[in-house]
Amino acid sequence: MEDILKEVCKRIQSKEDEIVADVIRLCRQPSISVQGIGIEETADMLIDSLKGIGARVERIDFGNGYPIIYGEIMGNSDKTLLFYNHYDVQPPDPIDEWVSPPFEPCVSDGKIYGRGTSDNKGDLIARIHAIKAFLEVNGSLPVNVKFLIEGEEEIGSPHLAQLVKEKGDLLKADGCIWEGGGRGADERIEISLGCKGISYAELEVTTAQNDLHSSNGTIVANPIWRLIWALSTLKNEEEEILIEGFYDDVKELGPRELATFDELTVDDLRLQESLGVKGFLIGLSGKELMKRHLLSPTCTICGFISGYTGEGAKTVLPNKARAKVDFRLVPNQDPEDISKTVEKHLQKNGFSDVKVTWAHGQHPYRAPLDSQIVKAARWASHQVYNANPSILLMTPGTGPMYELSGKLGLPTVALGVGHAGSAMHGPNENIRINDLILGTEMIAVLMAKFQRI
Amino acid sequence: MEDILKEVCKRIQSKEDEIVADVIRLCRQPSISVQGIGIEETADMLIDSLKGIGARVERIDFGNGYPIIYGEIMGNSDKTLLFYNHYDVQPPDPIDEWVSPPFEPCVSDGKIYGRGTSDNKGDLIARIHAIKAFLEVNGSLPVNVKFLIEGEEEIGSPHLAQLVKEKGDLLKADGCIWEGGGRGADERIEISLGCKGISYAELEVTTAQNDLHSSNGTIVANPIWRLIWALSTLKNEEEEILIEGFYDDVKELGPRELATFDELTVDDLRLQESLGVKGFLIGLSGKELMKRHLLSPTCTICGFISGYTGEGAKTVLPNKARAKVDFRLVPNQDPEDISKTVEKHLQKNGFSDVKVTWAHGQHPYRAPLDSQIVKAARWASHQVYNANPSILLMTPGTGPMYELSGKLGLPTVALGVGHAGSAMHGPNENIRINDLILGTEMIAVLMAKFQRI
Repeated sequence: MEDILKEVCKRIQSKEDEIVADVIRLCRQPSISVQGIGIEETADMLIDSLKGIGARVERIDFGNGYPIIYGEIMGNSDKTLLFYNHYDVQPPDPIDEWVSPPFEPCVSDGKIYGRGTSDNKGDLIARIHAIKAFLEVNGSLPVNVKFLIEGEEEIGSPHLAQLVKEKGDLLKADGCIWEGGGRGADERIEISLGCKGISYAELEVTTAQNDLHSSNGTIVANPIWRLIWALSTLKNEEEEILIEGFYDDVKELGPRELATFDELTVDDLRLQESLGVKGFLIGLSGKELMKRHLLSPTCTICGFISGYTGEGAKTVLPNKARAKVDFRLVPNQDPEDISKTVEKHLQKNGFSDVKVTWAHGQHPYRAPLDSQIVKAARWASHQVYNANPSILLMTPGTGPMYELSGKLGLPTVALGVGHAGSAMHGPNENIRINDLILGTEMIAVLMAKFQRI
Repeated sequence: MEDILKEVCKRIQSKEDEIVADVIRLCRQPSISVQGIGIEETADMLIDSLKGIGARVERIDFGNGYPIIYGEIMGNSDKTLLFYNHYDVQPPDPIDEWVSPPFEPCVSDGKIYGRGTSDNKGDLIARIHAIKAFLEVNGSLPVNVKFLIEGEEEIGSPHLAQLVKEKGDLLKADGCIWEGGGRGADERIEISLGCKGISYAELEVTTAQNDLHSSNGTIVANPIWRLIWALSTLKNEEEEILIEGFYDDVKELGPRELATFDELTVDDLRLQESLGVKGFLIGLSGKELMKRHLLSPTCTICGFISGYTGEGAKTVLPNKARAKVDFRLVPNQDPEDISKTVEKHLQKNGFSDVKVTWAHGQHPYRAPLDSQIVKAARWASHQVYNANPSILLMTPGTGPMYELSGKLGLPTVALGVGHAGSAMHGPNENIRINDLILGTEMIAVLMAKFQRI
């Protein structure tokens, strides 16, 4: 690492108290989007913080949506890095399980506890302080930086598509650092290159005007049976999805992408323990398990209800059955196409009596492994953490990455200051101060590398 | 019909007001077993009624069960006829839908309205008055008669097995008239020779300690999928039950039994309307439909619950799924054997993770078509109703007939004074006065025929 970067890192280390204080200050301000709590106050704080490091700041409002904060600082380069963050947090429930109050952050055992510390106010403060330190040491930034900080991530980012459509030019960049992430269970830093998409369907069958006595099961169609037979055509016991064309658009991985799994640490027993299970599907373990977890599209029944479900025996022939099914998608599956494929499959297999209703879908996204932002992130994490990062081609979950990164063609990686025990969305959410400082250094080093790559 | 029987029938006709008054009197007394209302009062009334026609009466109490009333009158024969009735009724809910109060019976348009009129206090009064008229005209009965009147039929006859075990000798007879029945939708009288048995199972699968985020559907077993795959091995879309050995004990029907269907009136459209459906399973209609309805064992899923079942989309991987399945059984299927067969099937097909719990089962029962009681009932209905009866080899529903008739080897038919619009168990339960009087004559003529057959 060159001298200037070493100095920036030292500067960051010397500012530990200030950085911690800023995380505490931001987390003390509730900003619960689903309950509409503290939105304006938080937006004002962020505008001040960005102005404080010399950014040009713009507040963008769409209808009754929560304000989106945009900021930009020009650097010594024609390269631009976009930081995606959100200032909203999950509700603190169950409050009883917090050891300290969720919105009165406190430091204990080298950790900062409080709602939002990990998801993702800590990430945001790290980014702001990396820039601040760079400017203090160097006078200017190695790249142009842009901030996009929305307040609706925890409620599904309902205005992100509109932002990209109407303000796409403002968001133009050469790479993007998404929020979230940090150290994995093996203590190595994780760099995620994407997330899955989703199609979510409700399937419903109605057979009669009312529930009937079950003795009519001889001659009257049973909606549970209909739905079971329909669903059993979707996936077999070997976990193969049987819908014609379902896998058609799944992009094959190259050898270099597959090689990322060789560098992952997979601790099956630890994973079993954290999930509360005694084994995994179809006998998988190790890297094969992780490949499936990160890369496979799914067909998961999330709910099923029909008929009598109370205690004891009631002999009823129900007239209606409903099931909810989510399909997690991987590049280049398209949620619209998948929904058509599923409906066609049901028709073709004689289940035109199954009524399908689709919830809003999301596209999958995965950054190219050879993109500059991935290379810069990998190099920077070596420098800062003195270890290979874990490159995760995807996360198993779904996020709005495609709406921004996919639509703008903006190579994106997610990385942050969390750790395996950060309890995102749960009680006693926390980050470790050491991770916060190293995560701040990581952003500084990454900016410098990104300029020259 | 010989003169004496004609005179008995005339006597019954002349007593119409008295018979109607007795139905009203008995129905005015609530006797709701599930709520424990009016049990003792009703038992006392019945003891008095039976004593009033000269019966030797015995009250039988088992533990905390409701009293069973036994009565017997010796006749001019060594043949004995047993009447099975119950004095308990269903709760009157929904009370708002009654046009007149359920326990203040009233006569309107030639019908008696009130809870219990059809199920089955009207049947009981008809039997008592048939005997009374016979004794008044003839001085003695053509056969010995026995009454078994229980107070727990609407709650599953929990003491019937014990009664048969401990008092089997008391119940010995040559034939039995069960309660229930009357005229079908085609206005012909129905004589039922049996009812189906039942095995009722709850199936449960548990896969993890808690519900998980559905992104884990890649690697963690889904209890809904497990249960769907397990259930889909039980029955196919052609409604064939696929459990090995399930049909093994089903008794084949002879040509004379099958011929009973030729005499049935089947009005598909009317049946569709009454069930609120637009068609029947596997395209059946007419006599084939009725054969399946009366004679086929079933595998009906009565309920299914797992995961998120509310509005909208929640991405959860549930940890538990439960289904309730009833198997209606036909002679000579045995509920114990069936439960073992089902469990063996699941094991054999790789579903040892499906936990099965059985509710109390019931055996099916069907009287031999050539038994004297069937012949006597058929002949008597010709005499009284001037039309062929509908001989129903079974009813599609389940009853405790096997506990009494099966275990005692007592050929049994069910017949009564109801009609297709009697609304048993529903609001505005009713019988027609004309049916009540003819039904009383039917019992008188049947007794006389049973003596000589």
